Amino acid sequence: MQHDENWFTEASHDNGSAFSLKIRQKLHDETTPYQHIEIFATEQFGHLMVIDGFIMLTSRDNFIYHEMLTHPALFTHPQPNKVLIIGGGDCGILREVLKHPEVNHAQQVEIDERVTRVAEQFFPQLCESNHDPRAELHFTDGIEWMKQSPENHYDVIIIDSTDPVGPAKNLFTHEFYAHCYRALGKQGLLVAQSESPLFNMDLIGDMHRAMHKAGFATTKCLFFPQCSYPSGWWTATMASKTTAFTPLRGTAIAEKCFTTQYYNRDIHQAALVAPAFFYANL
Amino acid sequence: MQHDENWFTEASHDNGSAFSLKIRQKLHDETTPYQHIEIFATEQFGHLMVIDGFIMLTSRDNFIYHEMLTHPALFTHPQPNKVLIIGGGDCGILREVLKHPEVNHAQQVEIDERVTRVAEQFFPQLCESNHDPRAELHFTDGIEWMKQSPENHYDVIIIDSTDPVGPAKNLFTHEFYAHCYRALGKQGLLVAQSESPLFNMDLIGDMHRAMHKAGFATTKCLFFPQCSYPSGWWTATMASKTTAFTPLRGTAIAEKCFTTQYYNRDIHQAALVAPAFFYANL
Repeated sequence: MQHDENWFTEASHDNGSAFSLKIRQKLHDETTPYQHIEIFATEQFGHLMVIDGFIMLTSRDNFIYHEMLTHPALFTHPQPNKVLIIGGGDCGILREVLKHPEVNHAQQVEIDERVTRVAEQFFPQLCESNHDPRAELHFTDGIEWMKQSPENHYDVIIIDSTDPVGPAKNLFTHEFYAHCYRALGKQGLLVAQSESPLFNMDLIGDMHRAMHKAGFATTKCLFFPQCSYPSGWWTATMASKTTAFTPLRGTAIAEKCFTTQYYNRDIHQAALVAPAFFYANL
Repeated sequence: MQHDENWFTEASHDNGSAFSLKIRQKLHDETTPYQHIEIFATEQFGHLMVIDGFIMLTSRDNFIYHEMLTHPALFTHPQPNKVLIIGGGDCGILREVLKHPEVNHAQQVEIDERVTRVAEQFFPQLCESNHDPRAELHFTDGIEWMKQSPENHYDVIIIDSTDPVGPAKNLFTHEFYAHCYRALGKQGLLVAQSESPLFNMDLIGDMHRAMHKAGFATTKCLFFPQCSYPSGWWTATMASKTTAFTPLRGTAIAEKCFTTQYYNRDIHQAALVAPAFFYANL
């Protein structure tokens, strides 16, 4: 078949593949000083946010990504009180972070305020915790923020970036990770979205090496499906100042006071398992 | 972007989504008494087989599906000597099955001989074990085959079917599973491809219920990524005459005499873990 104009398509040109969603109508189109933001109503995936032509999230499948960028790190750290989110303007990770009663301060540092304002309008469910008294939204450059962060301050830093092209590229460097390392407490954990294991093994390997170069003792990949991202299979990479990602706070997971759609204790353990080809190509 | 004619696209209309691969050229086009088979050379996924407009497999990512339909079942059964494959005309599962030295007889029952002949031409690596003396290729109706199978004969039956539309629909019924049950030995295992957990929860639930109705004591889902299938996330459903899918033959996995690209012991365990929404919707 050939698509007509009622489909939004994102091609992954380096991989000769593309993913498309059928559209009912375009709801919003805006060029900010940073990027081009579009919102569509899709036929079957709810609302769709596109930035510079790349799918950021849909109502239907964002739960997997947001839960997996948040809960594994927060249930590994023994006491995640202070959490920083770099990027994450749609506020979906902020919402998941604030589900944890141990968190008493969550800062979100997004460069483009318009992403958050547009999310508040078209993804209100993701923004339902934006006015939590523990939440602090800053609209400024995440790299500058990290440079100026005090030492030994955060328990968990979550990097919810766009793909490593353009300005976001600097969020994948050892210099940036070194600032994160400095700003994290002794048991600090970093977690960053790290693209597809089928399409981006080179990048994933580079990230692990850059995190080690920045001083982190251990790195580990989390694997999960993500329908609307290239290849449908995605990763987050965790880096720890200490030597292990286990044991998890298993009792806390079992007794958690909130619901999740994807994450649970067994999924956490399962997501840490790498396929056979992974270590051979890392 | 709009696709030009250099892309092959499969739309999942019920889900308003589509997946496309960039094509270099069409290599083969044939209408058999059963179906329409096309082979393309893609830009980045190697060869692509399409049947009746649906992507069957690509050179690049078929390894995950073929390994996950085979090794979990064969490393769970205590002694998988006799294995039956229903469908599977591309011979990728047959190849994986024959990697197991315990297997002394593997039958493949594919309705359309042309699928296998075309696979031999365009996916020769998948067909490299077709002449193994333990292999037996039959080209006939799998449902009739099961009806006439002797009782208590097979150790593992693998159903590598197309989607549950048209003739393949009968491969998803409790009547068919009951024939499988009868033909399996006391410790017999059935494993069937069972579509996407994001798109097809109703079907997956129906399959579990039909397997139980056919007499199977336990059913269990295996989850894995599959880039070129709808949603990029896929399942196989296992059914056992006995009550448990564990322990695995862990020592045999650790000491296996063959290589895999995706499967290993930890992946086997991890694939058995269901996301939070799964049991709520089963």
